[in-house]
Amino acid sequence: MVKRNENLARLPAGYLFPEINRRRRSLLLRNPHAKIVSLGVGDTSRPLTPHVVEAMRKAVLGLGTPEGYSGYGEEAGMLDLRKRIAQRLYRGTVDAEEVFLSDGAKCDCGRWQILFGPRTRIAVQDPAYPVYVDGSVIAGDGGAFEGGRFADIVYMQCKPENGFFPTLDELPPVDLIYFCSPNNPTGAAATREQLEELVAFARARGAIILFDSAYSDFIRDDSLPRSIFEIEDARRSAIEIGSFSKTAGFTGVRLGWSVVPKELAFDDGRPVIDDWKRITTTIFNGASNIAQYGGIAALDDEGVEETRGTVAYYMENARIIKDALDALGIENYGGSNAPYLWARFPGRKSWDVFEEILERAHVVVTPGAGFGPAGEEFIRFSAFGPREDVLEAVERLRRTVALVRLP
Amino acid sequence: MVKRNENLARLPAGYLFPEINRRRRSLLLRNPHAKIVSLGVGDTSRPLTPHVVEAMRKAVLGLGTPEGYSGYGEEAGMLDLRKRIAQRLYRGTVDAEEVFLSDGAKCDCGRWQILFGPRTRIAVQDPAYPVYVDGSVIAGDGGAFEGGRFADIVYMQCKPENGFFPTLDELPPVDLIYFCSPNNPTGAAATREQLEELVAFARARGAIILFDSAYSDFIRDDSLPRSIFEIEDARRSAIEIGSFSKTAGFTGVRLGWSVVPKELAFDDGRPVIDDWKRITTTIFNGASNIAQYGGIAALDDEGVEETRGTVAYYMENARIIKDALDALGIENYGGSNAPYLWARFPGRKSWDVFEEILERAHVVVTPGAGFGPAGEEFIRFSAFGPREDVLEAVERLRRTVALVRLP
Repeated sequence: MVKRNENLARLPAGYLFPEINRRRRSLLLRNPHAKIVSLGVGDTSRPLTPHVVEAMRKAVLGLGTPEGYSGYGEEAGMLDLRKRIAQRLYRGTVDAEEVFLSDGAKCDCGRWQILFGPRTRIAVQDPAYPVYVDGSVIAGDGGAFEGGRFADIVYMQCKPENGFFPTLDELPPVDLIYFCSPNNPTGAAATREQLEELVAFARARGAIILFDSAYSDFIRDDSLPRSIFEIEDARRSAIEIGSFSKTAGFTGVRLGWSVVPKELAFDDGRPVIDDWKRITTTIFNGASNIAQYGGIAALDDEGVEETRGTVAYYMENARIIKDALDALGIENYGGSNAPYLWARFPGRKSWDVFEEILERAHVVVTPGAGFGPAGEEFIRFSAFGPREDVLEAVERLRRTVALVRLP
Repeated sequence: MVKRNENLARLPAGYLFPEINRRRRSLLLRNPHAKIVSLGVGDTSRPLTPHVVEAMRKAVLGLGTPEGYSGYGEEAGMLDLRKRIAQRLYRGTVDAEEVFLSDGAKCDCGRWQILFGPRTRIAVQDPAYPVYVDGSVIAGDGGAFEGGRFADIVYMQCKPENGFFPTLDELPPVDLIYFCSPNNPTGAAATREQLEELVAFARARGAIILFDSAYSDFIRDDSLPRSIFEIEDARRSAIEIGSFSKTAGFTGVRLGWSVVPKELAFDDGRPVIDDWKRITTTIFNGASNIAQYGGIAALDDEGVEETRGTVAYYMENARIIKDALDALGIENYGGSNAPYLWARFPGRKSWDVFEEILERAHVVVTPGAGFGPAGEEFIRFSAFGPREDVLEAVERLRRTVALVRLP
């Protein structure tokens, strides 16, 4: 008989969002008429924009003709799209050949975890997007699970008290540092000085930063870096993962990318980019060509203009949620340069607060503990819902505010 | 400094098809006017069919409206598509909840390799699709690379002499048996008796079969099984990977699936399907929704009828290639229930034959050695090209036949 992979056996419970969906379905079973409104999962709600739709429509029709048909493309993606990402989003700080298209940031995380392999010493912001830890555990990097933490993973606490930036000097030796800014879930956007400190630390310790910039388009303060490659020396210390999901609304269409600088190397001098090419050509086959045509359109002048409108819509949602939390006297962070609000409920278990908000207000949020031990006491509010849901959820929170036992 | 993943370091050379492309580019550098024709990579050339195009066009337009927009879907895919696959392709032998959509068979192979994890004892047909071995080596299953083989991988020789079916009784203990039928590259389609023997062997030894049915639509002989689940008891011993790539022309659109029967379990009784759900929800985010709408259309009456036409086209290509090889007196196999021909050049190194055909006829084929040690002496011809390329390639082979030093 075949033995179960012991790395999978270490994972304690279901992935966060399926668990939230389970509890939501449970409420609906007990209360079939409940009108649940979600400020939970970071799922987009704005339709694809007209210019992008038109490009994908043309792509589909083209694939139906002998002249327009194409089969397998380069695993790394269409050169035109790679060029646009390099020029438009990275303003020439990276080359087109360093950009690799993917079917999304989450999937690319998984491939990076395979690339680095077992016993990689990883550090994550705490709280963090669950895929960093869960995927690393599956890849064999977790060690024992004790008291809500994996013994071999370094949790870098990011709380209001330290400006959501870890005290790097206290870290034990690490290989790979996951860093997400603007941050999911806290909504904190790192300053230039913070990212300079991070890169200098990685250089000094010989670590690699896996920088998740999926929310960079939500930065409104132009003094804040939108990419790790705006920081000097980052090309020798960092990989960046980006996504079309949140800005172009491609959560279902599936398109993202990784940037791998040519200078980035392992201790034996071998370029990381070579192993990345090997991984992506061996167990990946490129992003959907239709999605790539959409991505190309999303990055021309018209597409960028449309995307700005989508981002502005979500950021107005964030403002509405922030104003409501402020008015209710609930301590909160984020929402200014990120589509997430991070609200504190002192002394409360976050899953308890989640349950209360779900049961009493029929509003789905995300419990902070789902993002790591330092997420306890916190709730994440997502600004990705339709405006009417945001307004309705905010109104219901106002009405049921007693439940959250304000300090 | 970060150490390189030793599993990646074990892989000897580039993935087969990038290597072929490198040699092709090298010819073009030396001979810029060469008109290269390819019977090489199994890349489709027929346009998407009208009914599928129309479904995807509608899907794209729908995603551009508030009512039609959707973001993240279930990682396992749309229920309607899962149902159609279960009913239409598996005729009820599997349930919709056992079907998991993916962005393609190659990518799903990678996820299965992560699921089973390091030190899984794998067996592959030799020759075989390179992803089985390469991906397993990356996952930590390879052991040392010696004399063109990985020490910890069992190579099940499949040659004309054994009817392309391994002598199972001689195998050492294994956990996971990769089996592809109709086979890539040999074109051999296993008989019912052979698959019954395979399933009985897996049951007796407690192994799991990973059955690759990507080419099942090319079976013309109705006595041959199109799925491992046509075999009794397979539900306790097998996983199946399928694909829309070759029949619906989705090589670039990206859509495939895995079937995981609920009864399939590890030695501790834990269902494999549970770990599969954990993997696919953690490091995968579902196939592109546009591709899934296309898949739904490809599986209704109109879509199936169109697909038949595409398959018939490629099978006519296969017949043309087979006739030419026969006329040239070249020993060959496959092509009757598979889109591949497997031609023998006794005593020759397959990369040498590849080079000669490329340099003299400007025809790209695939060297058998790229599929494993038992592929030496063989060349794979793919029937997926446009008709005019197939005719041109066949004509050039006729003209330059001296080069292959017929026996």
